Amino acid sequence: MSSTFGTALKLMIFGQSHAPAIGMCMDGFPSGFAPDFEALQQFLSRRAPGQGAFTTPRREADQPEFLSGFSGGKTCGAPIAAIIQNTNVHSQDYVNLTETPRPAHADWVSREKYGESADLSGGGHFSGRLTAPLCIAGGLCLQYLQAQNIHIGAHILRIGQAEDDRFDAVHPDFSLENGYTVKPEAWSAMLEEIAAARSDGDSVGGVIECAVTGLPVGLGEPMFGGMENRLSQILFGIPAVKGVEFGSGFACAGMRGSVHNDPFCLDDSGAFRTKTNNAGGILGGITNAMPLIFRIAIKPTPSISRPQETVRFDGTATTLKIQGRHDPCIVPRALPCVEAAAAIAILDAFLEVKKWN
Amino acid sequence: MSSTFGTALKLMIFGQSHAPAIGMCMDGFPSGFAPDFEALQQFLSRRAPGQGAFTTPRREADQPEFLSGFSGGKTCGAPIAAIIQNTNVHSQDYVNLTETPRPAHADWVSREKYGESADLSGGGHFSGRLTAPLCIAGGLCLQYLQAQNIHIGAHILRIGQAEDDRFDAVHPDFSLENGYTVKPEAWSAMLEEIAAARSDGDSVGGVIECAVTGLPVGLGEPMFGGMENRLSQILFGIPAVKGVEFGSGFACAGMRGSVHNDPFCLDDSGAFRTKTNNAGGILGGITNAMPLIFRIAIKPTPSISRPQETVRFDGTATTLKIQGRHDPCIVPRALPCVEAAAAIAILDAFLEVKKWN
Amino acid sequence: MSSTFGTALKLMIFGQSHAPAIGMCMDGFPSGFAPDFEALQQFLSRRAPGQGAFTTPRREADQPEFLSGFSGGKTCGAPIAAIIQNTNVHSQDYVNLTETPRPAHADWVSREKYGESADLSGGGHFSGRLTAPLCIAGGLCLQYLQAQNIHIGAHILRIGQAEDDRFDAVHPDFSLENGYTVKPEAWSAMLEEIAAARSDGDSVGGVIECAVTGLPVGLGEPMFGGMENRLSQILFGIPAVKGVEFGSGFACAGMRGSVHNDPFCLDDSGAFRTKTNNAGGILGGITNAMPLIFRIAIKPTPSISRPQETVRFDGTATTLKIQGRHDPCIVPRALPCVEAAAAIAILDAFLEVKKWN
Amino acid sequence: MSSTFGTALKLMIFGQSHAPAIGMCMDGFPSGFAPDFEALQQFLSRRAPGQGAFTTPRREADQPEFLSGFSGGKTCGAPIAAIIQNTNVHSQDYVNLTETPRPAHADWVSREKYGESADLSGGGHFSGRLTAPLCIAGGLCLQYLQAQNIHIGAHILRIGQAEDDRFDAVHPDFSLENGYTVKPEAWSAMLEEIAAARSDGDSVGGVIECAVTGLPVGLGEPMFGGMENRLSQILFGIPAVKGVEFGSGFACAGMRGSVHNDPFCLDDSGAFRTKTNNAGGILGGITNAMPLIFRIAIKPTPSISRPQETVRFDGTATTLKIQGRHDPCIVPRALPCVEAAAAIAILDAFLEVKKWN
Repeated sequence: MSSTFGTALKLMIFGQSHAPAIGMCMDGFPSGFAPDFEALQQFLSRRAPGQGAFTTPRREADQPEFLSGFSGGKTCGAPIAAIIQNTNVHSQDYVNLTETPRPAHADWVSREKYGESADLSGGGHFSGRLTAPLCIAGGLCLQYLQAQNIHIGAHILRIGQAEDDRFDAVHPDFSLENGYTVKPEAWSAMLEEIAAARSDGDSVGGVIECAVTGLPVGLGEPMFGGMENRLSQILFGIPAVKGVEFGSGFACAGMRGSVHNDPFCLDDSGAFRTKTNNAGGILGGITNAMPLIFRIAIKPTPSISRPQETVRFDGTATTLKIQGRHDPCIVPRALPCVEAAAAIAILDAFLEVKKWN
Repeated sequence: MSSTFGTALKLMIFGQSHAPAIGMCMDGFPSGFAPDFEALQQFLSRRAPGQGAFTTPRREADQPEFLSGFSGGKTCGAPIAAIIQNTNVHSQDYVNLTETPRPAHADWVSREKYGESADLSGGGHFSGRLTAPLCIAGGLCLQYLQAQNIHIGAHILRIGQAEDDRFDAVHPDFSLENGYTVKPEAWSAMLEEIAAARSDGDSVGGVIECAVTGLPVGLGEPMFGGMENRLSQILFGIPAVKGVEFGSGFACAGMRGSVHNDPFCLDDSGAFRTKTNNAGGILGGITNAMPLIFRIAIKPTPSISRPQETVRFDGTATTLKIQGRHDPCIVPRALPCVEAAAAIAILDAFLEVKKWN
Repeated sequence: MSSTFGTALKLMIFGQSHAPAIGMCMDGFPSGFAPDFEALQQFLSRRAPGQGAFTTPRREADQPEFLSGFSGGKTCGAPIAAIIQNTNVHSQDYVNLTETPRPAHADWVSREKYGESADLSGGGHFSGRLTAPLCIAGGLCLQYLQAQNIHIGAHILRIGQAEDDRFDAVHPDFSLENGYTVKPEAWSAMLEEIAAARSDGDSVGGVIECAVTGLPVGLGEPMFGGMENRLSQILFGIPAVKGVEFGSGFACAGMRGSVHNDPFCLDDSGAFRTKTNNAGGILGGITNAMPLIFRIAIKPTPSISRPQETVRFDGTATTLKIQGRHDPCIVPRALPCVEAAAAIAILDAFLEVKKWN
Repeated sequence: MSSTFGTALKLMIFGQSHAPAIGMCMDGFPSGFAPDFEALQQFLSRRAPGQGAFTTPRREADQPEFLSGFSGGKTCGAPIAAIIQNTNVHSQDYVNLTETPRPAHADWVSREKYGESADLSGGGHFSGRLTAPLCIAGGLCLQYLQAQNIHIGAHILRIGQAEDDRFDAVHPDFSLENGYTVKPEAWSAMLEEIAAARSDGDSVGGVIECAVTGLPVGLGEPMFGGMENRLSQILFGIPAVKGVEFGSGFACAGMRGSVHNDPFCLDDSGAFRTKTNNAGGILGGITNAMPLIFRIAIKPTPSISRPQETVRFDGTATTLKIQGRHDPCIVPRALPCVEAAAAIAILDAFLEVKKWN
């Protein structure tokens, strides 16, 4: 457990916000695959800060150095390791925090769990920066799955009160016009929510929806190894995620079985399909060849510039004003993280199929 | 993966709906614990069918036989195994199903994954009946945690359109008047939803909320071993769960950070607390000593007596009318399953704390 | 860890010597396999006591009851569970032991580890009797592997000073004339060693050699997931095993590389082979299509009727005279256990090959 | 499985002989520990080549760069990652090998398993060089265990025909005069064996014995999680290991129970001890507070300068003459690897004890 995920594909993520480097090691990736490193870099840049009005001006190259796992540009079957050197760190931004736990951050539990040696600077191992190695690993998995005609795409469903349309659960369309939402006007409303939060010294949360198409029938194992179990286990590894739902999700509570049950039918090629997709592509934990659909809730960024009540580690109450550069909303930057996490869990399940076939 | 869960505490669940027995084996449970077997039986009876107007008339004793793991009435450190013999099985109820996958059930994916030998009768290994061994394992964990002053309680938050009040997230009160809801009148409204679904030959879904009190600071590991990761992994092992959320959950999408961030304060004894509990007792995946709060969405029971469209395994379209006895709503019976699953995941994390202490 | 083994194929073993039952649960076994249950029973009877002059007169049917995992006589993909009811237990034989740890048994460490609730009666969970469920699991794996033309056979290489010939490492011949040794006269000498130990109220150890033929190239993973790693992990789960060696084993210490290195050649069909097989069929942890050869050392049965010095749990020195029925040599009965353990580890590796293929 | 080891302490090793770097990531190491980095470097230098007449002249600094897991010189609870840059690589030494598998190396199985993308240069991920990150991880574990008064020491028991005395199994003395053997004259004889092998263009194998003192009672779990299971699993991860034995080891085959059983007694402080230590400090897989003793067999280095028969990947028979710099005996350099591997497995078990205490 802990910073390690997977069975057939094993991933370990390491690093702290202000450590010399962050990185990942992934064991079990198939050999003979030649990634498109340029496309990977573009994928990583979607997560990187500094891309627009809504993100922090802290800018990092986030260029991975691949240390192992390749031979002649192709994966060679050995564990893949990659790191990103930490640069451009303004440690003074964080100095006043080490004695004062920030509300809604892991500072306090970290200090309680690990003692005085806990690395709290910049959030340490709990920093959102650790999603960069997740995206390196996931970016490779995404490319591998694409080569199997399995595609993963996420969009922003909600920021504050601004909402996009859901994907069509039977025929999701990944051709987003602006890269963030299905409906262009939704993106404008979201930008307003973010701008308003920023001008208030505040932050705002959101919901991301993700779809996976092209999955074969039969990925996932019963009970605790199902696709919901695996996906939720990795998705809650993205900081700030507070909820995960599949298919109809929480809305199923208000539905009747006669509406919720997806009737079976045959498609033009004679293959089994369901007419609707309230199941979100998963029955009994196992993929049913329909699009796999899930949504995650992302809390408002805990780092806000407004003064907050807290208690110093020495037990004295205080008011904290967080300095430095912080996103008023991390939802847009979380999009590639969600796709990456999904890709890792799905490839892990994909590589296990030999067990039953 | 698959029907196996846990690290320090390892659980394996076996059985099919119509196999000779269902059961569980649990490795790593602490030695020297004397369970209250009568209380365990009462706990199991909450899950058993046939308790009221809203449940199926199929009645099973669900009396576990403990095969191993005890000596003189106490756990002895060896793996605990328990089984429930399958009796009172009306296999003819299921006969017509073996050639026709039931919508929203695992029949079809099971046949695709396991081939013609897949056991589809009564849902096989995917049957909700497999939650009985989950409750045996979880019932033991619940009692062990109670002895550590850790308490777990769930209530029905919603059935159809009928809703209960949420727990007070800072001071949840487990003394439910009717055993199901916080507010008695909510239960009446829920019974009406269930009765209406039954009379329509239909079913209805719901939401369960669960709280855990008395947890120490520091349970859970970063990234993929956090409490949300572990709890969601096991909770999605309960059939029909379509969503899991912690603390504020999906509502966090519409909140500002200044509202969502829980300010730190000191309680009367000088211990760290938070004033609010939008975090649901978890920061960075790790317990923060506040009540751990989560909610799960449960889909409408897929077995309904209304005719449904489906396709036989041989590829011919047909209309299916499911015979036999089926709950119009399994939410009430799922309450102990949720408590059991939570207890297993929490005890697993609890037994790992030596790593950091 | 602990009583759980495997990755793609997960095995959990439960039970104590005097518990109601012993058993196993195995998750991940392929579906659609129809075992020969009669052959399985014969395999189990090779492990059961009471077969000859050299074994204990305690006689147990060791007939497994299969509780789950089958449908219509074939595996259905769900976890396989089987138990053996414990009968014919003379608990009075063990009464005097509970206050006095037996030398070379686990009584003392068990009491220290698990406290006063430790089940010491008959060895509890540490009893050699727990190899019966290992043989149920392994017997199924053996049959599955046989259907893939992978064969596993063991013989007794040594008991006391009596020795058999080693297998031909390139062309091992499993057609043992007496079921125990390659050379018939070796078996006579071994019987004499056992008889002598018995008449002295003593016991004697031995060595078992095992060969596996028909393996494809490529089973096993680098470093910690190699075939030696997996096989040794499971083989040391058989009580009394004190050493494991592969191929040339400890003899390699006295060899030169020019002799030890197995030259590559082509067989008649043009396939890669090695001329010799000092590697024991494993290079870099991975099978190389040559016979996999290993040997294990088994200590003399610790239960002897001769008086032994020990110390009661209350700290008083004493002399212990173990009553009851005990084998002077468990090596013959360990043969099927070794084959079973090997089959489990090999099938686990076999089911993982999808990762690289 | 594969290049990942451990449960409470999880280790992943990455890198290939000619990749940009080799390294390790270790998750679960206790926080608040301040390693002596100079002592760690000295430990690593025992493994490094170029230390004497018997080792290869290829010289590498093997200075680890720690990328994460520390804060202020102490472990902070986050995963520890460290790398060693690969420098001084003479890739032309290996050029002729890529089309010709070297006997007794993993070249052939690697090519078969991973396909044409397999990295065979210098042995790739199978290179003995990968024991350097093992020693980084193990060196940290050794220091942590030392702080708990648990000490691990290994000596060379045999090289070719030259033998040292075994450790006293009850009171092992780690104060080796020459750093390699208990008996100084044994070392001279071993050097002669190595020199003879070198002058013959050949190599020679050996045996290493290792002892661990200061262990508490109760480390290890029954059946598959015992100390023998864990130690053997990691020890076979050291390239060239062909056998592992504990306590009396293979010699137990020729012993009687009355001699082999270690009688219990009390030491001066009233603590349980055994008079002899044929068990090697392990009963039922669990430590019994006596010194833990094991031995491993190491095959002769497969890289020899003598011509060897082999078959090119294209199927043509050939004679191979391995160029470059190779140790005629890697046993001395394997000493720290054995200590490191033991330390990792023992700390993993040590960190799990909370389960039963």
